[in-house]
Amino acid sequence: MHQSSAHLLSSTFYSRISSLLRCNEGLTLVIQNSLCHQKLHYCTGLGATSSSILKQSENSLHPRSNIYNTTRRMAFMKTPCNIGDPVSEVETPSLLVCLKSLEYNLKKMTETMKAFPGVNFRTHAKTHKCPMISRLQIKSGAVGVCCQTLTEAEAMVEGGIEDILLSNQVIGIKKLRRLAGLARYAKIAACVDSEGNIEDLSQAARELGVTVDVLVEVNVGGNRCGVEPGDSVLKLAEKIKSLPNINFKGLQCYNGKIQHIRSAADRKAAVGVVIEKTVKSIKALKDRGIDCSYITGGGTGTFQYEASSGVFTEVQPGSYVFMDVDYGKNLDVKEQFVSDFQQSLYVLSTVQSVAAGDRAILDAGLKAHSLDSGVPKLSGHPDLTYYNGGDEHGVVIPDGGLKVGDLVWLIPGHCDPTVNMHEWVVGLRDGKVECIWPVSGRGPGK
Amino acid sequence: MHQSSAHLLSSTFYSRISSLLRCNEGLTLVIQNSLCHQKLHYCTGLGATSSSILKQSENSLHPRSNIYNTTRRMAFMKTPCNIGDPVSEVETPSLLVCLKSLEYNLKKMTETMKAFPGVNFRTHAKTHKCPMISRLQIKSGAVGVCCQTLTEAEAMVEGGIEDILLSNQVIGIKKLRRLAGLARYAKIAACVDSEGNIEDLSQAARELGVTVDVLVEVNVGGNRCGVEPGDSVLKLAEKIKSLPNINFKGLQCYNGKIQHIRSAADRKAAVGVVIEKTVKSIKALKDRGIDCSYITGGGTGTFQYEASSGVFTEVQPGSYVFMDVDYGKNLDVKEQFVSDFQQSLYVLSTVQSVAAGDRAILDAGLKAHSLDSGVPKLSGHPDLTYYNGGDEHGVVIPDGGLKVGDLVWLIPGHCDPTVNMHEWVVGLRDGKVECIWPVSGRGPGK
Repeated sequence: MHQSSAHLLSSTFYSRISSLLRCNEGLTLVIQNSLCHQKLHYCTGLGATSSSILKQSENSLHPRSNIYNTTRRMAFMKTPCNIGDPVSEVETPSLLVCLKSLEYNLKKMTETMKAFPGVNFRTHAKTHKCPMISRLQIKSGAVGVCCQTLTEAEAMVEGGIEDILLSNQVIGIKKLRRLAGLARYAKIAACVDSEGNIEDLSQAARELGVTVDVLVEVNVGGNRCGVEPGDSVLKLAEKIKSLPNINFKGLQCYNGKIQHIRSAADRKAAVGVVIEKTVKSIKALKDRGIDCSYITGGGTGTFQYEASSGVFTEVQPGSYVFMDVDYGKNLDVKEQFVSDFQQSLYVLSTVQSVAAGDRAILDAGLKAHSLDSGVPKLSGHPDLTYYNGGDEHGVVIPDGGLKVGDLVWLIPGHCDPTVNMHEWVVGLRDGKVECIWPVSGRGPGK
Repeated sequence: MHQSSAHLLSSTFYSRISSLLRCNEGLTLVIQNSLCHQKLHYCTGLGATSSSILKQSENSLHPRSNIYNTTRRMAFMKTPCNIGDPVSEVETPSLLVCLKSLEYNLKKMTETMKAFPGVNFRTHAKTHKCPMISRLQIKSGAVGVCCQTLTEAEAMVEGGIEDILLSNQVIGIKKLRRLAGLARYAKIAACVDSEGNIEDLSQAARELGVTVDVLVEVNVGGNRCGVEPGDSVLKLAEKIKSLPNINFKGLQCYNGKIQHIRSAADRKAAVGVVIEKTVKSIKALKDRGIDCSYITGGGTGTFQYEASSGVFTEVQPGSYVFMDVDYGKNLDVKEQFVSDFQQSLYVLSTVQSVAAGDRAILDAGLKAHSLDSGVPKLSGHPDLTYYNGGDEHGVVIPDGGLKVGDLVWLIPGHCDPTVNMHEWVVGLRDGKVECIWPVSGRGPGK
């Protein structure tokens, strides 16, 4: 490969470098050593497919992208086991998914949504951050995915997903260029709630020569992002319509907090508030002649209420594929624990110390699961309680007869941030490893 | 390269593959696609240095290591900025370290330890998981590092650290083989608290033809791992002495919980209990003729008490390089907040939404910092409070006049698990990026 080609390669976006890897014909690595500012290029032969990708890259090069402002490093990541291994061979702490339960949940969602023929479901990738699972969800009927971060969206495009709603604001021209770059390869929509951000998004899309769909995020009660219902929504929609390369698509009306209200009646009532604020926003638009035919929102805890509202055209369940201790505390209309979906996600841990008669210590602590929604439960040990033992330890009281080396399956307190701590999801069927999927969208969300 | 060489390469330990990368002469990638069970080998020329490493790898091959049971994948990691960038160019959320404060802390530790001439300090890498920082700590006088996980220890060896205490139990023969493998390249010590684990460790060390130093972990009050002081310690020391390829080195006597006791007098009293239990253990050994000349423990909150005890020969401070909100709550003997060390670590975040007069929303949530020890503080904004806004959001109340796009520097509540969420530490000096260091020991701790 010529030096000029290496230069081009190194200066392209991450997504294209990833494509090069996928083309299986050759490889270029750019390794920057931050200490000595030295760059090393390793090249192998490139065939036809790669050359065409190179050409694509050349066309999409932004003037600011050059070899000196794209710093990447390479890493090898070791999987915690191998395909075909029995679960006893999986190094811990590891994230496991029971494939039968995952498949049950996929099927259950498809069946549930049949009751709402005018409403699509767009599964939320923030739960798993794993393109392979998104692809299974799309195969089971989802129209596309939601992402909460640009990192997730990049991972999804690189993993073959072609319809993505970034259900969050992306701030700053650098990130917006990354977002616009994705629109070359997939249908991309993003949420906004401020005028300057809309201007920046239009600029980035114009620079890249793409069009990005835009949703106004409405504060439907969560008091986080989003503008107030009514006139503020109208103002932003008009702003979007006034600028090039962005297309007003509809409204994002999601309240995360109400997903975890325990009583079914209370959850339904809370969705009533969401719908009221949504309707107010639609009316403000309609009164000024702006038709809004796309309303999206709702999560695992409430999506059936949004879906049956006659207002929402799309729902965004995410956690249903995995479930967790927190969602397991929600009650259904019969005041029973919700049982629509099965627990499919676990953190596998090993007993590393036992003080007989007192406690057992697990090797899974704060770095293996998130405690924000409470501690994990020990699957199959309803009599044992997990206590936070710090970054690398869990304390189980009583010891329950556990021995050093025993495996313990933990049900995470909160699935999304727990998955974020792991590089791999190990898929199990009948006690054996069937697949090892990279959680390629993980990270703080840059 | 011959296929047999490729086979050898792919079947060696991670540490040697990493070495190959570092030799700058050639490169082999093994990419396993878990879907089709296909492996692809990309090879470039290998020079003399690489060949010698290959030979080393061959010698250290374990019979169970072959091409089919070592699954690795490659990833590119994009840094959030480039060297020389102003801080305004750093994509958020990112982990920042102010190098001047880091250097102040390194120097302050060296000076503090001069008061205890018979006591070494071994800095704890669990805080930063970053070999570059360990190297700075060793240059400033540390005798080596502690690691809490095998993943951290592997990263440290690969990053050039040659004296490592694994201050935790490593369970299972597979992991113990990885540990023993490291002893080929560095001085390795590990902690134990059960007989079967000691047998496994001896077996792994014997298989690899290495000797591993072993410490008995004593439960000095933390009620986590460790055996009770006295006879149980003696029993394990004798077990260690009875087996080949492991060497009884001394005692691990650390209580993490007491680091965070607020009053200096109460912390000192709690160390008194630690020392009492340690002395009891030393006596039990001495009564049976076992000399114990190595006692290690103590953290950032208490190390001066352990160092002045006349019992401890080594202390293990970690958090002092960074500090955090939690350690900032500790009081000194004058009932003032501790001020020995400076805050050097921050999470840089961007304001993504503002509801004027009410709240500002940051792009740093549960995936950018750990809330286990409380929420982060906004540096320079003592009047503003951070509230948990979920995985990707922080809610700041009141809005403090913040505008969309403003950068906010967050002081993490707890430094160790916060660092664990980030791939890079961005080093700043005078507002510009001077270095970008990989947090190569991060992860759940496999």
